[in-house]
Amino acid sequence: MSVVQVIPLGGVGEIGKNCTVIRQGDDMVVIDCGLSFPTEEMLGVDIVIPDFTYLLENKDKIRGLFLTHAHEDHVGALPYLLPEIPGCPIYASQFTHALIRNKLEERIGTKGLILKDYKAGDIIQCGSLSVEPIRITHSIPESYCMAVRSEHGIIFFTGDFKFDFTPVDGKPAQINRIAEIGDEGVVLLLSDSTNVDRPGWGPSEREASKGIRDVMLNAEGRVLLTTFASNIHRLQQLMDVAAEVGRKVAVVGRRMEQNLDICARMGYVTIPKGVQIKLEDLRLYPDNQLAILTTGSQGEPMSALVQMSKGEYGRLQIKNGDTVIYSARPIPGNEGAIWRTVNRLFRQGAVVIYDSKTPIHVSGHAYQEELKMMISLTKPYYIAPVHGEPRHQHIYNQMARAMGYPDHRIFTLKDGIPLNLEETNATFGEAVPFGRVLVDTGGTPGVTDDVLKDRFNIARDGIIVLTVVVDVEKGEVCGEPVLQARGFHAPEGTLDFAFDVLWDALRALSREELKDVGRLRHDVSDVIRKSIHKRTNMRPLVLPTIVEV
Amino acid sequence: MSVVQVIPLGGVGEIGKNCTVIRQGDDMVVIDCGLSFPTEEMLGVDIVIPDFTYLLENKDKIRGLFLTHAHEDHVGALPYLLPEIPGCPIYASQFTHALIRNKLEERIGTKGLILKDYKAGDIIQCGSLSVEPIRITHSIPESYCMAVRSEHGIIFFTGDFKFDFTPVDGKPAQINRIAEIGDEGVVLLLSDSTNVDRPGWGPSEREASKGIRDVMLNAEGRVLLTTFASNIHRLQQLMDVAAEVGRKVAVVGRRMEQNLDICARMGYVTIPKGVQIKLEDLRLYPDNQLAILTTGSQGEPMSALVQMSKGEYGRLQIKNGDTVIYSARPIPGNEGAIWRTVNRLFRQGAVVIYDSKTPIHVSGHAYQEELKMMISLTKPYYIAPVHGEPRHQHIYNQMARAMGYPDHRIFTLKDGIPLNLEETNATFGEAVPFGRVLVDTGGTPGVTDDVLKDRFNIARDGIIVLTVVVDVEKGEVCGEPVLQARGFHAPEGTLDFAFDVLWDALRALSREELKDVGRLRHDVSDVIRKSIHKRTNMRPLVLPTIVEV
Repeated sequence: MSVVQVIPLGGVGEIGKNCTVIRQGDDMVVIDCGLSFPTEEMLGVDIVIPDFTYLLENKDKIRGLFLTHAHEDHVGALPYLLPEIPGCPIYASQFTHALIRNKLEERIGTKGLILKDYKAGDIIQCGSLSVEPIRITHSIPESYCMAVRSEHGIIFFTGDFKFDFTPVDGKPAQINRIAEIGDEGVVLLLSDSTNVDRPGWGPSEREASKGIRDVMLNAEGRVLLTTFASNIHRLQQLMDVAAEVGRKVAVVGRRMEQNLDICARMGYVTIPKGVQIKLEDLRLYPDNQLAILTTGSQGEPMSALVQMSKGEYGRLQIKNGDTVIYSARPIPGNEGAIWRTVNRLFRQGAVVIYDSKTPIHVSGHAYQEELKMMISLTKPYYIAPVHGEPRHQHIYNQMARAMGYPDHRIFTLKDGIPLNLEETNATFGEAVPFGRVLVDTGGTPGVTDDVLKDRFNIARDGIIVLTVVVDVEKGEVCGEPVLQARGFHAPEGTLDFAFDVLWDALRALSREELKDVGRLRHDVSDVIRKSIHKRTNMRPLVLPTIVEV
Repeated sequence: MSVVQVIPLGGVGEIGKNCTVIRQGDDMVVIDCGLSFPTEEMLGVDIVIPDFTYLLENKDKIRGLFLTHAHEDHVGALPYLLPEIPGCPIYASQFTHALIRNKLEERIGTKGLILKDYKAGDIIQCGSLSVEPIRITHSIPESYCMAVRSEHGIIFFTGDFKFDFTPVDGKPAQINRIAEIGDEGVVLLLSDSTNVDRPGWGPSEREASKGIRDVMLNAEGRVLLTTFASNIHRLQQLMDVAAEVGRKVAVVGRRMEQNLDICARMGYVTIPKGVQIKLEDLRLYPDNQLAILTTGSQGEPMSALVQMSKGEYGRLQIKNGDTVIYSARPIPGNEGAIWRTVNRLFRQGAVVIYDSKTPIHVSGHAYQEELKMMISLTKPYYIAPVHGEPRHQHIYNQMARAMGYPDHRIFTLKDGIPLNLEETNATFGEAVPFGRVLVDTGGTPGVTDDVLKDRFNIARDGIIVLTVVVDVEKGEVCGEPVLQARGFHAPEGTLDFAFDVLWDALRALSREELKDVGRLRHDVSDVIRKSIHKRTNMRPLVLPTIVEV
């Protein structure tokens, strides 16, 4: 029997950029292809994607790419991988395909892509492996677990999930099918762990309707609601509550409009008759009969809500008496931008509801008791938390131990390190190429650490550009050196001081020394760096240009 | 009777940089002089302080500067104001003076400063105004409210506070004195509002001991605790619990050591005999008899804990089995850095307790019922929340309305806008000079928006420096132009492409055009900017140097 490898290329020990390979001999199955968002030190980075080297080196072995659901952290890196693996079928639900098709069109086109729809109950053969999608509940319709059958048993990949018995779209998880698969024999459970630090059982998505209804009933003016454009259930809930309380709904934000449109066409959102109106028609109704659905829940600078909070959105202004519902959880790192937006909205006269006794938002991820239920249903031999940071992995492992799992059956996975399943044991293998690839604001992947370091240094203390013209034949400086600074701030006279020191240093050099341009470049930079640091305690980046004439 | 003005120069509609002026005729009293921390867009900014222009324009009228307590957001801007107002007495408790003296020594020296100790019960005459400090409870010893007597009644300034009936230092708030002052007649209450979105009554500082004790008893290895160096009560609690459970305590982090030293000498922290040991002596004890107090609770890059989490702290390493207690609340904006530190600590083998059923941290600020108690004790005619963002002001005002205050007696203050108290009414006056002053990493105040904008642009897309040498007499370009990029990332060949476009453009210029250096500088920048944007969709900063020979 061969070794079966589980190789996370992203999404373990971190939240985001989910991408996992399951390999048996020469057959590989890839599950998800997501992005993550940059941390605040990744200056000028737009998104972060997994390093796909391992996939590219083995592209002839990839039998299928499976998408569990349509969230960006599971599908957002597709435009960077798909052009490199032509001919590889991309399996997803019809709904997920519809949501990603737009974005793929915009970025790389969909010509030549093999998009294959799956549905619950399908068993898709991928060489010697097979994959069965099982419907589960989450904050977006059509989310699936993946049961991958290997020579050593089933590898059960939960994807993002919660157990929601009253899902907004009425489609419950296939719990009995999960139980059957558990009985068949799960060798390894790879489980969502994002919310493992929350005890108990999470509330149903439907609970959020209560809080939204409360606000809509009590607000004397317009009600704005912001959430992720991909939180399709929430869009449905807003529409339903609005119809119930007699408010019309206008939608702002391109991605929100697009998603709502696709979902309405496919029947994933049912807009009650006459509820949706155009933005231009807001003026036709009194304020207390209006609701507005908007992007911007993460404080994104270009989003509709953030621009409204600054009074810079042409199509819509905040006014006194507006109520804004924040129906989303901050992605860690966005808190600052979100609070600034909230405060600006208050200053514009709005009341912002960001927390409330009756929930206005619920999480799409399983709490502790739900995670235990998944373990109980699947009865895996080995167990490994994914989709979590080290702190989540740690707490998940504690939980598994409390359920009787001994240490040797619990694995703390790391990106790039294969877990090798053999007949009677499981061990970590040799690292494969892995890592994070930073994509810049122009969409080009591959921002290097050196570039980030320069950006960081310049962002902190600025840059000083220094130009010296040298007649290399004569060994003479021509004219005066030029010092220019950008992003540099220092006590008055600092640049003049540095200039004088430099001038003195240049005049002290011999003709021979002036002819050695490489050395000269180094020396002048050094003089400027040291004189500025001495005077200001700062370290701007110094960039010398020696012009030879 | 004259107009009495309350002029916030910082600390309203925001958290941090607290500084308030109370003025009656030609007599001014200043309360607090704090800093705030930069938001993530303030690249290269170390701290933010109030604009002191109004104080400097009226320095002859300042009769006293009063410090409520020793937290940075109340005292951190002193080094920038004190040198400008020599001769102004600085009133604070003996303890507060002791804590700030060190920092003042390091920055500006204390020679010539008039540091006057106050204690509860003192009434300090400041021209026609008088100031009475009243002891209150907070997360640092010796915190005071200020009752300022004016012609129109008492202006009661709470400072940061909570009502803690079992304070760690055994010194309760002077509640009865507050009640007496309420009976005497408070015209205006300026109240802390930081925690107004928390219902109920906050837990006593002492509660945190329980959580710390739990961890210490159950941890099989060393216990590290991180908190603010200024959270003196927490330092005391750690020492007490350590003594109780039989652990020795070592302290790392310069500011932590300093504060503990001062507090121990002055009797504000009592270190049980034999509990504190030197860092070098950790090796003399088994791990389960050790505790370590460390800085770094906010993820500060240079702090001991953050460096330990990276394995880069020479004096101490994290090891398997360590438990780290996070006994602090994140300052908004620091969440990202804190979670990264937590995750790195887990990766190093530590278990991090950042949340727990028995509290390991409690807030130093009053919850809703405590805020209502303060209103009930002081019975003010007018009421205005301070030390809060717009969202806190809004909720506080709602609360005041629920207590029966009509709208015209509630004021939402704004930095720089005086509240004018007259015999029978209160109105907003004309703005005085105010704002935020950004202090760079070298300690120089006055980082401008232009500098920040340059830093932001360079941090996002990098900088391109372009040098062209021109013989102005002949109207000729000498040699080839030079393009250098830093922090710039783009598809291969982008710079070559831009170079070619530039070269073509230069060759198309007439001799006359080449002689016009100002025009040339503008044109070459434009060519580079456009060609790069066209090719990459990015906008690096372009800095041209035209060298004339």
